[in-house]
Amino acid sequence: MRKRLQIGILGLGVVGTGVVEIVNQERKKIKQKTGVDLLITKALVRPGEDKSALAAAQGFQLVYDSKDITEDPDIDVVVEVMGKIHPAYEFITEALEQGKHVVTANKDLLAQKGTQLVQTAIENHVSLYYEASVAGGIPILRVLANSFVADEITEVLGIINGTTNYMLTQMVEQQMTYEDALAQAQALGFAESNPKNDVDGIDAAYKTVILTRFAYGLDIAIDDFVVKGIRGIDLEDIALAQSLGYEVKLIGLTKKVGEGIFAEVAPALVPKHHPLASIRNEFNGVFVRSRGIGQSMYYGPGAGSLPTATSVVTDLAVIAENQSDNKPAPQFCTYETKKAFANPNDVSYGYFIALALADEQSLWPEIQKLAEAYGIVYRVVADEQGSESRRLVLLTEAINEVQKHQFVTSVNQLEASNVSQIMKVMEE
Amino acid sequence: MRKRLQIGILGLGVVGTGVVEIVNQERKKIKQKTGVDLLITKALVRPGEDKSALAAAQGFQLVYDSKDITEDPDIDVVVEVMGKIHPAYEFITEALEQGKHVVTANKDLLAQKGTQLVQTAIENHVSLYYEASVAGGIPILRVLANSFVADEITEVLGIINGTTNYMLTQMVEQQMTYEDALAQAQALGFAESNPKNDVDGIDAAYKTVILTRFAYGLDIAIDDFVVKGIRGIDLEDIALAQSLGYEVKLIGLTKKVGEGIFAEVAPALVPKHHPLASIRNEFNGVFVRSRGIGQSMYYGPGAGSLPTATSVVTDLAVIAENQSDNKPAPQFCTYETKKAFANPNDVSYGYFIALALADEQSLWPEIQKLAEAYGIVYRVVADEQGSESRRLVLLTEAINEVQKHQFVTSVNQLEASNVSQIMKVMEE
Repeated sequence: MRKRLQIGILGLGVVGTGVVEIVNQERKKIKQKTGVDLLITKALVRPGEDKSALAAAQGFQLVYDSKDITEDPDIDVVVEVMGKIHPAYEFITEALEQGKHVVTANKDLLAQKGTQLVQTAIENHVSLYYEASVAGGIPILRVLANSFVADEITEVLGIINGTTNYMLTQMVEQQMTYEDALAQAQALGFAESNPKNDVDGIDAAYKTVILTRFAYGLDIAIDDFVVKGIRGIDLEDIALAQSLGYEVKLIGLTKKVGEGIFAEVAPALVPKHHPLASIRNEFNGVFVRSRGIGQSMYYGPGAGSLPTATSVVTDLAVIAENQSDNKPAPQFCTYETKKAFANPNDVSYGYFIALALADEQSLWPEIQKLAEAYGIVYRVVADEQGSESRRLVLLTEAINEVQKHQFVTSVNQLEASNVSQIMKVMEE
Repeated sequence: MRKRLQIGILGLGVVGTGVVEIVNQERKKIKQKTGVDLLITKALVRPGEDKSALAAAQGFQLVYDSKDITEDPDIDVVVEVMGKIHPAYEFITEALEQGKHVVTANKDLLAQKGTQLVQTAIENHVSLYYEASVAGGIPILRVLANSFVADEITEVLGIINGTTNYMLTQMVEQQMTYEDALAQAQALGFAESNPKNDVDGIDAAYKTVILTRFAYGLDIAIDDFVVKGIRGIDLEDIALAQSLGYEVKLIGLTKKVGEGIFAEVAPALVPKHHPLASIRNEFNGVFVRSRGIGQSMYYGPGAGSLPTATSVVTDLAVIAENQSDNKPAPQFCTYETKKAFANPNDVSYGYFIALALADEQSLWPEIQKLAEAYGIVYRVVADEQGSESRRLVLLTEAINEVQKHQFVTSVNQLEASNVSQIMKVMEE
């Protein structure tokens, strides 16, 4: 059993630097708890990147070739905090194949290449940990892996993108437009100059993939489900939802229905008394419904270099604690790779449906007939005649995915009518 | 390494019965994850208690003498779900001394006899787990033990008594008096016929003791800190706090100040945007402030037989997972038993102070002078002349425990004036 773990870090940006500092600060405490000393010996930087002061102060070596870390027989654990898919995927694969444990915060990589990486870790009897990849500062993956083993999770709802939650909060509280909220998020560094991954829900979708694996031991890919962001979301819809007792939140949803999974990322109406409703600004929250515990929620910062680095070092401490002579290295999460999808007939939610009708005279009776034909029970919560069109908003009782799809398609096929917004309504 | 753990249960009430059922339901999944089969072989019941149908259905033996479990060499783990201090303490001690791991949900016992029990577990190289003892369905102890090892916790604020949180929620939302809220909690089974442990904060204080050990590795006893419940709390104070943007919650607070601990259980003002403010009815929440993660919160049911039993079985699964030939059984939490208290000069909070002044003419100027003398900066948020006395409410800026104590004592020493309510104001 090793009494010391030597660590190589791939990437010395803000997170990598944070990892170095936290290992240094918490080393004694981690040794007390685990009996193992953590020691950072090497860090990979780009040519020209000057980190010599940090390296000298902390006593590790700077290297410019990843193989100096992944092929170093003295290194036990590799920390990847470079981001992006390539070359992170290749570096991690090489490290695992060389028998090194790996810790990463790379959600894009885990969502897209997780299956291959977990397989490589299993084959090489090493651990692959990535707690920081979902909701940076919330220990949600470890909670799902360890604290629900005697329970059965049925639904996970996550506010797992801080940028969009910040924007939605500002829009509501400051009566700000989508565009202004985005500009403000960019000014504060919450959103990148190209905000696509955040505002179009892609970042939340990656995390939903990872949450699905941990919650159900089942896999799903980002292409397997609807991913809708908050781009161009209407302040009018948000205000109406508020007046009806709801907050609009971008929700990453993953639900077990029968033996299959239903997943979606989309804005949704969350009742004001629901624990997710009060999550403001850049914070994240993951709400779990399960047979035994019932309802639980885990709240914290979704990103930020210090929470992310802290979470990475926690993974290092768990690897230290796992050191054992007679047991294989534990896997963070294993899952079936054969996909199983829920039957859309069995997936039911209520909906907020905003309609824009150009011709007020005849269209609404026609739409009412469609709703009746598809068995949709609703109440009208807004009916406003604008200069060019009539705006109607319906709040439906629970309907399944097939009913919803049929109704929306039929409304959009009518001339001069369309569904301008449709959002799921979460149960309290 | 054992491939099978035999379990004996002390007590077959609702929680014990739940444990039996959940082990039965989740056995296969736990075996998949841990490689270990859980098998309940015996349960202790009281003479005359007829559990033969359950025992027959689940294939375990009923016993009437605790020694049939604690001295049975085939039993590996003892689950104590009897409650109360005696004889649970003696039974658990005996089980530990016989080399058996123990799982319990008994918070009173852990708070009062935890030090002795943990010591006995260490000496006998066995594990003692009690996740269900604090906030039943929230895996807060495991999160504190495992996910903060690379972090430094500075403050923990818990809504950790479901009964009082239910009462406070009903008082606010239904404009109900304390007495009516208590009667309703009793009718719903949230409060016992003698509600003292809940409404006087004692239950929350036990949990605060346990949280302190997990958060800081330091000990504190229930007699070491102020414990105030919600008995007789005034709807008028709650309404005023609400109008100022706060919810009144019974908070178990434990803070690291320098090398010492400051703990308190008392009603406090929580800003409406604070994550604890939205925790309603019988739910619990534990908010953690730490250097690395910053703010995080863990929310779920505080009690209930199904969440509690689920949590007990999770502990059993962790014991199964820990089975190893070459490592000692891990301890859930060890802590220094030498007590260290914070310097009261270094513990600062803002306060909501309600004053009742019988003689309006001269008293208020005198109190203003006292405030000035003790360096207390405040604003007057209510000033009402009642039929018998004048009611003044001050909201102070942060003052330390000494200033607070001096001011309250001096006001109460004045003839015909007293502090009718004083509550800490939590930071957002």
